Amino acid sequence: MGAATAGSALLQSMTGAIPATAAPAGQFRQGRGGARQAGTVLIIGAGVAGLRAARLLLDQGYSVEISEALDRPGGRNFTARTGDKVVENGSGGTITTQTCTFDEGLYLNLGAGRIPYHHRRVLDLCSRLEVLLEPYIMETTANRFAAVGGVAETNRRVANDTRGHLAALLHRAVKKGALTAELAALSSSQQENLLDLLTVFGDLNTTKDFEYTGSTRAGNKVPLSVTDMPQAPTPLGLGDLIDARYWQNQFYHPVNHLWQATMFQPVGGMDMIVKALVGDLPEGTITYDDPVTSVEILPDGVLVKSAKGGERTVDYCLSNMPLPVLHEKVLKGGFSSDFQKAVGILKFGPSCKVGWQANERFWESDKYQIYGGISWTNDIIQQVWYPSNDYFSEKGTMTGAYNFDDDAIKMGEMSLAERLDTARQSATRLHTEFGDTDIVPNNGLSIAWHKVPYQSGVSAHWDPADVNSAFAYSRLLAPDTPTNRRFFVIGDQVSPLPGWQEGALMSAEYVVGQLTGTQRSEPPVVHQVPDSRALRP
Amino acid sequence: MGAATAGSALLQSMTGAIPATAAPAGQFRQGRGGARQAGTVLIIGAGVAGLRAARLLLDQGYSVEISEALDRPGGRNFTARTGDKVVENGSGGTITTQTCTFDEGLYLNLGAGRIPYHHRRVLDLCSRLEVLLEPYIMETTANRFAAVGGVAETNRRVANDTRGHLAALLHRAVKKGALTAELAALSSSQQENLLDLLTVFGDLNTTKDFEYTGSTRAGNKVPLSVTDMPQAPTPLGLGDLIDARYWQNQFYHPVNHLWQATMFQPVGGMDMIVKALVGDLPEGTITYDDPVTSVEILPDGVLVKSAKGGERTVDYCLSNMPLPVLHEKVLKGGFSSDFQKAVGILKFGPSCKVGWQANERFWESDKYQIYGGISWTNDIIQQVWYPSNDYFSEKGTMTGAYNFDDDAIKMGEMSLAERLDTARQSATRLHTEFGDTDIVPNNGLSIAWHKVPYQSGVSAHWDPADVNSAFAYSRLLAPDTPTNRRFFVIGDQVSPLPGWQEGALMSAEYVVGQLTGTQRSEPPVVHQVPDSRALRP
Repeated sequence: MGAATAGSALLQSMTGAIPATAAPAGQFRQGRGGARQAGTVLIIGAGVAGLRAARLLLDQGYSVEISEALDRPGGRNFTARTGDKVVENGSGGTITTQTCTFDEGLYLNLGAGRIPYHHRRVLDLCSRLEVLLEPYIMETTANRFAAVGGVAETNRRVANDTRGHLAALLHRAVKKGALTAELAALSSSQQENLLDLLTVFGDLNTTKDFEYTGSTRAGNKVPLSVTDMPQAPTPLGLGDLIDARYWQNQFYHPVNHLWQATMFQPVGGMDMIVKALVGDLPEGTITYDDPVTSVEILPDGVLVKSAKGGERTVDYCLSNMPLPVLHEKVLKGGFSSDFQKAVGILKFGPSCKVGWQANERFWESDKYQIYGGISWTNDIIQQVWYPSNDYFSEKGTMTGAYNFDDDAIKMGEMSLAERLDTARQSATRLHTEFGDTDIVPNNGLSIAWHKVPYQSGVSAHWDPADVNSAFAYSRLLAPDTPTNRRFFVIGDQVSPLPGWQEGALMSAEYVVGQLTGTQRSEPPVVHQVPDSRALRP
Repeated sequence: MGAATAGSALLQSMTGAIPATAAPAGQFRQGRGGARQAGTVLIIGAGVAGLRAARLLLDQGYSVEISEALDRPGGRNFTARTGDKVVENGSGGTITTQTCTFDEGLYLNLGAGRIPYHHRRVLDLCSRLEVLLEPYIMETTANRFAAVGGVAETNRRVANDTRGHLAALLHRAVKKGALTAELAALSSSQQENLLDLLTVFGDLNTTKDFEYTGSTRAGNKVPLSVTDMPQAPTPLGLGDLIDARYWQNQFYHPVNHLWQATMFQPVGGMDMIVKALVGDLPEGTITYDDPVTSVEILPDGVLVKSAKGGERTVDYCLSNMPLPVLHEKVLKGGFSSDFQKAVGILKFGPSCKVGWQANERFWESDKYQIYGGISWTNDIIQQVWYPSNDYFSEKGTMTGAYNFDDDAIKMGEMSLAERLDTARQSATRLHTEFGDTDIVPNNGLSIAWHKVPYQSGVSAHWDPADVNSAFAYSRLLAPDTPTNRRFFVIGDQVSPLPGWQEGALMSAEYVVGQLTGTQRSEPPVVHQVPDSRALRP
């Protein structure tokens, strides 16, 4: 508790930030209804779930206050612009702070970065709150894959040559009757048509026994001219493709449902959503730099202590804090033992991002012709994102690393300078321009989400193989005491979409339903817990 | 000749259009250089190639005049807005005219509709002339395929279930040693890794003998909720997929290089490019409603007659007219016989588009979740385009048919009302909302490009199987007389990209090089002619 308060004060003193809507802490804001007074609610954390829950509760006549530990709202929805601070816990209780020095007008999403077309709550919210969206390009065939030691190759060659080789092999197997048993359910005309499907699927050579001899899907061998028609480049060999192991390094990630086209992003930065959510609340609803240091369940309410708000009793408390933080620092007396046990089970996963300013959009030049999307690597940076905004302009920002697991832990342990050096070296394998500080200057940023104060990682790590996870997930979907309904956990952490804003909104709606009594408050039957590894953002 | 003049006068009287830059015809405009006078050039046709050639020649000190047969520039770069006329040749010398009645602010590209990322000339031009671009979304996994008699199915299911089935079959064939000879070049560890590649490629079931048992890539079986995790829908059966014949109906079109992400379109309509090109020329360079009716080669120039400009002799003439129109109506005396023969060989291909206004963007609703891209069918409309602009707004426009070959001929022969009825019926198989005229009102438009005056189709139809095509293509890449260099054919029709603006720009650059002497003027050696069927826009 003392550490948290000290950390917050330190944060404020280091950043010099003034909370956006400074107001006396501990004062409840009333909903649009005004007169109705359904109860008082303290929400811990001004992330997307907390902000959304606040609006919903205000609409139902509750009085709502949000305590936010940091000096900004949004949590992992965080966009860096010049002057913004990236703060991390260092070793031995120290704090490291980076200040963004991107040119005016440049920005980079350091957390949430994209919205799938099927995340209806997020899209609907953006529509209603007039957050302007533009397509986020997840993949272009000009994107690259680089394996250490190898040459970076384009997506169009890797993807289409692979597809051609696989189709040719299967065509051969079907044609020679090697799959008679497997294809027994198909009529002979269906089997003929399967061969035709494979021919189109892989762009096989109909004049050379349906071999794969290359395809213009992989691009043009020589630039077109009035006398040079499209010609397929010599295909990459199947053995070479296999040796590159690209499929083990997220190359096929964009084919998964969460990343399928058409994705979106807010024009001007992901935090436009946060700004809109905050703007949709009465002024002063949020108290910044106000970490909650203790929560205790009383017979008729919840006793909460926070840095600025001091000690007070509220009717209800919704916690949007990452569960590991809640578990370690905040939960005090009065909680049921099963709830308390559930809170202690969940871990968050590590992840780092690196952000670069580029003084030329070299990736859009004739040399690369890349507009958005991601290049993949098999080394520590894992991936490089190209901006899906302000195409054809002069400068831009790039995500120079976005990694998980051991790579993230390793990068998180590096000094800030070491992180940038490492990321620059790796990215140079994709683009030699990273070696030139006139093009990519030394004002990069990095963030290790697992080291950010009041975060404990990039998203909840639910593992279906963990025997305790089903109990924990179910138990956390109900308040501390289902009959008393005083304390609730919210956020994408207790949703089927850890790490996604859609999960945060879904959780907010669900919990507000429980609090107001329209949704059952018993721990629900859960057949499956989220598979965070498959879903991680 | 008389017919062409009458047609043009009729056009003008019917449309009442005033040429954008009305000026006395036949007056040559001088380049920025002013004083230099390298010669006079008449350009026939204010399409993209003609406009670009004019700018290049003006920059080199030539005096340039453009005669445009229609009352607007751009040719097949044509964007419809309220009040715009779509004119076609009817039967027996009649003219049909449609007037666009879309709501103010709505527009639809009836011709050129997209720019590939590798069409560097177009992108560079847009940059230099400050034409704002936005992504054109070619494919989203929410797009649909509809076979007559069947239920429309989503791209995500068709694509990913197919991929799963194919991967599972090949996995089986490799595992049981059915492809030993074909895989002889792979080491045993490469063969093991091939199995792993197939597992990821097809999302095979690792707990069920690497069968394909469905994938969440195909979407979610039930909408997610806090207790419902992503679950794969039951996969479409391989036999059912084969019976749908989707791969024979352009389903895999977006994988081809010309349509790969990231594509672009100008904000506000494709004709923003035309407006910029026209704006880049001195006022009065273009004479509208001025069809050229005769061209004759003289020893020291070219004698040209046009409706407004009358008869005059110029040093050079560049023809951007479709070659069939040039051949049938314009070429008079003095041409070399091989050139004249070459001009007569090329045909243009038929194509229709239908445009709809929609009063609700129903395709973006929760029911469909479609943002851009194309749905494919196996009937006459062939495809339906969703707008890649103004997402989340109230109304929108859709391309309700875009067809070629027999479907285009058949639709072109229909009355205007019949075309719309047919297109509406077909589109209803994709979206029942097409059955509701409150949602999709009766103010649709259609265009049969092969019936538009001074066009003879949507693009040049080069066929590598045609024995005369190599001669014609090569010969047309040189002026009428390579030594005299007086008359040149320009346009995407004599480029490796028929139907694409990049081809038009490439041709303009090439021919200007020949005219000015920086490029050889002999017919070049051509190993291959464009394959228009594969490239058609």
